[in-house]
Amino acid sequence: MTHKIWKNINLLTMDNSENPYGYIDDAAIVVLGSAIEWVGAKKDLPEFPTAQVIDCSGAYMTPGLIDCHTHLVYGGNRIDEFEKRLNGASYEEIAKAGGGILSTVNATRQATEEELVASASKRLKNLLTEGVTTIEIKSGYGLDIENELKMLRAARKIGRMHNVDVVTSFLGAHALPPEYAVNREDYVDLIIEHMLPAVAAEGLAQAVDGFCENIGFTCGEIEKIFIAARKLGFDVKLHAEQLSDQKGAALAAKYGALSVDHLEYLSEESILAMKKSGTVAVLLPGAYYTLRETKLPPIELLRKHNIPIAIATDSNPGSSPVLSLKLMINMASTLFQLTPEEALSGVTRNAALALGLTDRGILARGKKADMVLWDINHPAELSYQVGGSQCLAVIKNGEVN
Amino acid sequence: MTHKIWKNINLLTMDNSENPYGYIDDAAIVVLGSAIEWVGAKKDLPEFPTAQVIDCSGAYMTPGLIDCHTHLVYGGNRIDEFEKRLNGASYEEIAKAGGGILSTVNATRQATEEELVASASKRLKNLLTEGVTTIEIKSGYGLDIENELKMLRAARKIGRMHNVDVVTSFLGAHALPPEYAVNREDYVDLIIEHMLPAVAAEGLAQAVDGFCENIGFTCGEIEKIFIAARKLGFDVKLHAEQLSDQKGAALAAKYGALSVDHLEYLSEESILAMKKSGTVAVLLPGAYYTLRETKLPPIELLRKHNIPIAIATDSNPGSSPVLSLKLMINMASTLFQLTPEEALSGVTRNAALALGLTDRGILARGKKADMVLWDINHPAELSYQVGGSQCLAVIKNGEVN
Repeated sequence: MTHKIWKNINLLTMDNSENPYGYIDDAAIVVLGSAIEWVGAKKDLPEFPTAQVIDCSGAYMTPGLIDCHTHLVYGGNRIDEFEKRLNGASYEEIAKAGGGILSTVNATRQATEEELVASASKRLKNLLTEGVTTIEIKSGYGLDIENELKMLRAARKIGRMHNVDVVTSFLGAHALPPEYAVNREDYVDLIIEHMLPAVAAEGLAQAVDGFCENIGFTCGEIEKIFIAARKLGFDVKLHAEQLSDQKGAALAAKYGALSVDHLEYLSEESILAMKKSGTVAVLLPGAYYTLRETKLPPIELLRKHNIPIAIATDSNPGSSPVLSLKLMINMASTLFQLTPEEALSGVTRNAALALGLTDRGILARGKKADMVLWDINHPAELSYQVGGSQCLAVIKNGEVN
Repeated sequence: MTHKIWKNINLLTMDNSENPYGYIDDAAIVVLGSAIEWVGAKKDLPEFPTAQVIDCSGAYMTPGLIDCHTHLVYGGNRIDEFEKRLNGASYEEIAKAGGGILSTVNATRQATEEELVASASKRLKNLLTEGVTTIEIKSGYGLDIENELKMLRAARKIGRMHNVDVVTSFLGAHALPPEYAVNREDYVDLIIEHMLPAVAAEGLAQAVDGFCENIGFTCGEIEKIFIAARKLGFDVKLHAEQLSDQKGAALAAKYGALSVDHLEYLSEESILAMKKSGTVAVLLPGAYYTLRETKLPPIELLRKHNIPIAIATDSNPGSSPVLSLKLMINMASTLFQLTPEEALSGVTRNAALALGLTDRGILARGKKADMVLWDINHPAELSYQVGGSQCLAVIKNGEVN
């Protein structure tokens, strides 16, 4: 293997021990294979006599972007429903016509694994060309053993097919399937007794997720699922406090959750619980935007208690049909008033934390050589610009994509 | 010249005499040179024996997109100010540090015409790859004769350099230049007596625009400018009712304005005036979004009185650093609740009206062959998707870009 030296870079290491953005002027970064071997100012670069040198002409470089919360795999779409709603149809009328999340469940159940792989791959390409090198994908539209496993297998296959690392989460507790409408306890039992062991046996998910909400699952139901999940060695995470304060974040923290996600209605009490457990706050501005939400997540309290904040697309067909993580950087700054540095940390360093990944998210010795080169003149330009392309090159595992 | 037949198309003609989107199933469109010669269902296609046939494999086709309100030409940027504001600096502190619109005026005055062309061209490319075939560009950061003319010449040059039609508007009445802070009447006189005749003499603008607002120009000042502009044969248009109801839209309508733009605070009385004059309402969701505005433009009243609604990026370094007209289609539906058909009409048919162009904006016999092919399965998908690429090909003047 030959060393590769990327030089003449404005480097944003996101390694926050130092200055803002972990910025290094006129930097170099040395890669061997898929790992970073050296990072620093070019003037301090040791000799690597046989190295291949790549001149970046002063471009900015960041860690590869990490989209830590997506529902990228699903069947069908909700375009027709989107149009009907804008033409005046009520949510009731749409539900009666078979719309809403259950329409996605039906379409996902009807799709083959190959069809799910194909449709999600097409969506994924949009994210990859903008610098995403790691993506989390959840199940949750199958809602029975066969179809939840099918979704997770599709997600894994997407990771093998494309130059991206896929981290999977099992989200059986996403919605109540219609066949369990009158016996919800049985569905929770099905998750615990059959789905979780099957997912574990096939090694199909790193984490177990749930939707804790009036229209989702109660804290009591989620707790049963978390207990079973932890016994099987899964990490846990939770959709919490999106539409109301269910105290889901505190519950998740109790079980050492990697992250709690959405959080518009999060209380300071729950934040204190998250602080103890080291749980990341994942904010999803695309859903906030699409749902025209006006209740902001408690950014100031998260800052006050030093909770790491991550940002993701929440890419899904209903509440966040988003195919740009870069746009979420802008929305995090515009809608949530995160500083550009916070927003960029949210899709790099803190997104890695939200997935329990310690080998990426910052540019430092020993970390994965996942890097993005940007056509910008100031780090805040990634937050400032609304739409448009800024990505010059994506480097995944040391190789240009 | 050979005829070109584009066939196997899901055609959205936006010619609203017919069904929604002016949709034609399994359509063909025949182009000779830069004009459309025939449009219809393939089964009705006359014979063109020597024609070149292009199979579109069932892709959707729309008219070329028209961005009818931009400030694409400017010097410098406002990224630093954007970051400072998010780090807690007040507007006052930023103004004292030389920020705000006057920082753009300074940077624009200092830039050469070539520098303005280069920076705007880079921004323009983002719009072109997403299907924009006609763009309006305003002056308004020069605020003296020399620099206003320089901006307009740069805009014209951009039109010659790229495969896009550039329509220019003279916006001398954008802000009061610092050197006239204490004698604003003299600046209005300068516009009327020197700038307008100079712009007219060089043929540098189709329309004269202004910013009618507490922090801009009064209705009285705008009226003087409009009277002079009309005498010189210019069309007029106006930034109106963005931050307060100045009755600017009614004033603009009195002078037969092509469009009034922004309109969050527009009253029904002004809408009635616009109806009489056939003035287009140009809505700018990117500015609404960036400024975190909560006052919505009066969509229902505009519908009630059948006012044509156009949508544009308002691309500018301060209140709308937007480089995606496609994202504005989504924002128009998401933030303003326009139907997908209204949103698409807003960047095609009605955007052409807002620029006084009768030769484009719909796909019909005799119109310009400006067309876009889309990788979508439903017309509403253009509104539904947030970010990501959907454009397969852009055809400008009959040729693939």
